[in-house]
Amino acid sequence: MIKVGVVGGTGYTGVELLRLLVLHPEVELSVVTSRSESGRKISDLYPNLRGHLDIEFTEPDVDRLAECDLVFFATPNGIAMKSVPTLLEKGVKVIDLAADFRIKDPELWSQWYGMEHACPELLEEAVYGLPETSREQIAKARLVANPGCYPTAVQLGFLPLVKAGLVDASCLIADTKSGVSGAGRGASVGTLLCEATESMKAYKADGHRHLPEISQGLQWHSNDKVGLTFVPHLTPMIRGIHATLYANLTQDVEDLQALFEQAYKDEPFVDVMPVGSHPETRSVKGANTCRIAVHKPQNGNTVIILSVIDNLVKGAAGQAVQNMNIMMGLDEETGLRQVALLP
Amino acid sequence: MIKVGVVGGTGYTGVELLRLLVLHPEVELSVVTSRSESGRKISDLYPNLRGHLDIEFTEPDVDRLAECDLVFFATPNGIAMKSVPTLLEKGVKVIDLAADFRIKDPELWSQWYGMEHACPELLEEAVYGLPETSREQIAKARLVANPGCYPTAVQLGFLPLVKAGLVDASCLIADTKSGVSGAGRGASVGTLLCEATESMKAYKADGHRHLPEISQGLQWHSNDKVGLTFVPHLTPMIRGIHATLYANLTQDVEDLQALFEQAYKDEPFVDVMPVGSHPETRSVKGANTCRIAVHKPQNGNTVIILSVIDNLVKGAAGQAVQNMNIMMGLDEETGLRQVALLP
Amino acid sequence: MIKVGVVGGTGYTGVELLRLLVLHPEVELSVVTSRSESGRKISDLYPNLRGHLDIEFTEPDVDRLAECDLVFFATPNGIAMKSVPTLLEKGVKVIDLAADFRIKDPELWSQWYGMEHACPELLEEAVYGLPETSREQIAKARLVANPGCYPTAVQLGFLPLVKAGLVDASCLIADTKSGVSGAGRGASVGTLLCEATESMKAYKADGHRHLPEISQGLQWHSNDKVGLTFVPHLTPMIRGIHATLYANLTQDVEDLQALFEQAYKDEPFVDVMPVGSHPETRSVKGANTCRIAVHKPQNGNTVIILSVIDNLVKGAAGQAVQNMNIMMGLDEETGLRQVALLP
Amino acid sequence: MIKVGVVGGTGYTGVELLRLLVLHPEVELSVVTSRSESGRKISDLYPNLRGHLDIEFTEPDVDRLAECDLVFFATPNGIAMKSVPTLLEKGVKVIDLAADFRIKDPELWSQWYGMEHACPELLEEAVYGLPETSREQIAKARLVANPGCYPTAVQLGFLPLVKAGLVDASCLIADTKSGVSGAGRGASVGTLLCEATESMKAYKADGHRHLPEISQGLQWHSNDKVGLTFVPHLTPMIRGIHATLYANLTQDVEDLQALFEQAYKDEPFVDVMPVGSHPETRSVKGANTCRIAVHKPQNGNTVIILSVIDNLVKGAAGQAVQNMNIMMGLDEETGLRQVALLP
Repeated sequence: MIKVGVVGGTGYTGVELLRLLVLHPEVELSVVTSRSESGRKISDLYPNLRGHLDIEFTEPDVDRLAECDLVFFATPNGIAMKSVPTLLEKGVKVIDLAADFRIKDPELWSQWYGMEHACPELLEEAVYGLPETSREQIAKARLVANPGCYPTAVQLGFLPLVKAGLVDASCLIADTKSGVSGAGRGASVGTLLCEATESMKAYKADGHRHLPEISQGLQWHSNDKVGLTFVPHLTPMIRGIHATLYANLTQDVEDLQALFEQAYKDEPFVDVMPVGSHPETRSVKGANTCRIAVHKPQNGNTVIILSVIDNLVKGAAGQAVQNMNIMMGLDEETGLRQVALLP
Repeated sequence: MIKVGVVGGTGYTGVELLRLLVLHPEVELSVVTSRSESGRKISDLYPNLRGHLDIEFTEPDVDRLAECDLVFFATPNGIAMKSVPTLLEKGVKVIDLAADFRIKDPELWSQWYGMEHACPELLEEAVYGLPETSREQIAKARLVANPGCYPTAVQLGFLPLVKAGLVDASCLIADTKSGVSGAGRGASVGTLLCEATESMKAYKADGHRHLPEISQGLQWHSNDKVGLTFVPHLTPMIRGIHATLYANLTQDVEDLQALFEQAYKDEPFVDVMPVGSHPETRSVKGANTCRIAVHKPQNGNTVIILSVIDNLVKGAAGQAVQNMNIMMGLDEETGLRQVALLP
Repeated sequence: MIKVGVVGGTGYTGVELLRLLVLHPEVELSVVTSRSESGRKISDLYPNLRGHLDIEFTEPDVDRLAECDLVFFATPNGIAMKSVPTLLEKGVKVIDLAADFRIKDPELWSQWYGMEHACPELLEEAVYGLPETSREQIAKARLVANPGCYPTAVQLGFLPLVKAGLVDASCLIADTKSGVSGAGRGASVGTLLCEATESMKAYKADGHRHLPEISQGLQWHSNDKVGLTFVPHLTPMIRGIHATLYANLTQDVEDLQALFEQAYKDEPFVDVMPVGSHPETRSVKGANTCRIAVHKPQNGNTVIILSVIDNLVKGAAGQAVQNMNIMMGLDEETGLRQVALLP
Repeated sequence: MIKVGVVGGTGYTGVELLRLLVLHPEVELSVVTSRSESGRKISDLYPNLRGHLDIEFTEPDVDRLAECDLVFFATPNGIAMKSVPTLLEKGVKVIDLAADFRIKDPELWSQWYGMEHACPELLEEAVYGLPETSREQIAKARLVANPGCYPTAVQLGFLPLVKAGLVDASCLIADTKSGVSGAGRGASVGTLLCEATESMKAYKADGHRHLPEISQGLQWHSNDKVGLTFVPHLTPMIRGIHATLYANLTQDVEDLQALFEQAYKDEPFVDVMPVGSHPETRSVKGANTCRIAVHKPQNGNTVIILSVIDNLVKGAAGQAVQNMNIMMGLDEETGLRQVALLP
């Protein structure tokens, strides 16, 4: 059994991680920390865990965390970077579900996240945890930066095209729609039911923090300079990201469908759907799957990729567990063979 | 491995059953029938099953079904009763998720369901599959009538009081609220998103088919004549039943909370919540759990029981799998240790 | 034109009041106050008002308010009572949409609202603004206590029965379901979309502040002692209250439907629906209407009344405008002839 | 008073038209037809109209319709074209809310709508009823083709750019999101609450009928050949269209915001929001307004236009009433000064 700790278990990413971990056959969940809820039974806050998890939230404590084999950080941005160096030193592996280790360039990171990085020396070592591109590095990593939700859906959609050099990388468009759980569990007027349901809106059209993360990831696999327009939208539902991706082909391609099927044929968590499909976010609700469909309307030179994930699973907690499985030498699907809850 | 067949796998109860069965470690799902979808891959209709289930819907065929150890009927009312006698004869165990075998009195059944019963001789033998009251009979049964969704939530809420003879059984009130999935997957104007969301309404206030089923179940455990007022409501959500139950105490009771905790202390799927709780339906979404809370406002003589289930799980498919586990001598929780999806 | 002020215009009751007032042909909206948003254009906060209202929120200022003919308080409980005496003195009429003047007994009020009353001497004078029972007093009032949302739906449903002395008043049950806007626009975890949608729960089953208000109102019209069990539920929708009311008949009644039709035949904002109806909350969304249906299932002695309103309109701002119309001698329907937005 | 008839009043466009017409001060609604509901009181089907409209649905009858000054067709595509020639002959003005007269080229129309056009000779005369581009022609028209919902939102967003020749017209992208009411009130599995809520999906990515309509409209105002990629999405809400539009600037533009403000400064129903805004669909729910915001992220050469409407109002019934006002010489805003219902 792997001894696992979770730092910051009270947000939506945290509770989803707990849901997956309590059912994981190889995991012993030994510590879950929360400053605000310390001393409270976890299942009091999250009654879905009644009967599955009997421990309490505790104060974050490096010594206790150091007894774990692996620690997940499900904290706000800027928290993990303060404790990660110590934990790594003590031989604990770390997966950060926040953004602290996602961007390689500390200045770029500071620019988008509005703070100084606490341990820029670790940025190079940290492995960007998208298993579909970096499985081998993840297997050897001490520190994994779990990708953001939008970046997961957008990169998995664009990568086969960008890698193959088939599209004009300078002019990519990602129109993305997210459920409200992406905004977290903090009390705020904008995500009240009465504000967010029965309405649709774009936000941060002038620049969202996931933009540099996506650009960086695509650039790693592109020979040409990547230029991305990225507009996120708030959608009146709890879970799900729908990325609608637009790119212009720079050459004739015989079979885009085959390109995608080939790219993901060995991937347990990426499902390329049949020609003509329109994946629904509900088809991945609660599951660690990214479903993708490819369209080339009117046989023109614009390609449309539709890519859906559950932002809390493949976009956060599920991918983190997938990374843990890889890091700990387990079967990658352990504890993740869940069927989406439909309807 | 148990060879299992599902008759009528295209409705919401059907797909939920499939979700649970494909993950059940002791089940081999060998046949799923559908007249309307015969020949179509199941995962085409329900993409959440892609990667989990590779078979097609087939025409209902008694001979093929007879090769199963156990067959579930997830068909509309009045279908199962036509094939069940043959299957039982051939040694197949049957769980009917519809209402065909729930009511013992064939005349009462006909009155509420508007048709003649095709095999009234089996009504006596059929075991009403509420494990919390009939575990031993279920274990020995050939034919189990899986309870309705409302009846499960209402009976589990009222039974400790009624069994103990503490309330006026002649004057029980069950105000129940159901998600729209209870109405099934048939195309109908009334359950369109635009008709059913952002609205609340009662329906069948003058008499719903679950009324005689609940009354019968409560009467079995009551010394006094049961009189029930039952008003169902359509709630703008997919899953969940919230039953709010009202009864008048006929005597002083010291500790209602203890009565309920005692009644369900050994039940793996009934959770009596702490004093003062208000269970949310989302705390059981996707899980086979009934959560119950007891209130006695202003210390008067009215008791309020709050009882929530997922109508598709503990109210249908999950309870059916629980019954299968009992009938086949498996651990009752096999395949059902799921955590509700929250948020 | 009537010069009108609104104190506390940033909540949901406030913005609904503004929606109705900007379209009211006899109203000049001269001042809208808000401590937190002072100096901000109202239509910045509420873009639905762009093009309809060009003024800014201002600091609450008694002198400016005193220039109005009538002032609405759409503030939290306990605010209005501090300024009302001064405004009345200066000849301004007041409608309080909060609870400060709803309960006649100051001790009972303190018990439920947790504070001392600031002007108990006005409680006697304040008219409880349910036009269907108190139109004449409202017409002469300086100070109207606008009823709560639940109390409006529940009282309009029970009153014909209670007034006629046909039911056991000691044993009334009101099972009520409210949209989330009833909880207001304050940032809180419990009313986040991700917490409140796709779920149903009861709350305050042991005692909600509207209980004494409803009991008081029913008692005024009952010869027998009123005993009420009142359970509110949070429903996953923005607007709407559905009250399901249960009472036991104490005598044979020939025609309950006629009783209700007669009771409300001259009421412009109460609609008794045909026999067998089940009113939907969406049929009153945005409209100042209460729709009621009467059921007597199985012809027993339990009466079920279904009563629906829009909590923000007939349950708050609409009823307040109706009261203003009566107080100012206008046609009662002025500015309120709106059709519910359906779908 | 204008005598008005509505053909096909049972769909969502129909009931929205009735909501607007019963409150219109210059309209006498004299006949509402429906084959399926003939003889039924309209307010029986749509209880929100109880107390506002007392007539029944009648069989479609040209003679009765011919007594009207103006007739609206709120019928499925292909119905209006059968009766319009007769009505025009009899001197009745017609507004068709379906697609029969929107496309000038009958062959293109047939290709997308799958039927022969019944009166291609009228296509030239029919005026495309987008008041913001064609107010003068509408004023003189006998026959107005009311624009589609997506086309309204997309054209109003793109037109200022296209007219000014500032963008590459050959490479426009319209990523659009619609509430479910756009799919109509017909019973279908895909728009059941349980299928459509809590999920997001694209549909008809390979070609939607509104594509040629939008292209035609933009082409009328463009010197260059228009090329459009158009992907509609189904969003889990009742009302609202959010169009996110992408275009590449072909020259330096000093002030895009001023361009839009100038373009719409005299338009009563187009609201250009302040710099940096993100319009929400709920800000126009029930209102005949299109709200638009302009973004140029990272000051690059991609322009993003956000354009929101209520698909049933500015995208259908409201725009139809606006067209009626223009055709009949009324103030264009008559009966349309409604404030969006928020929350």
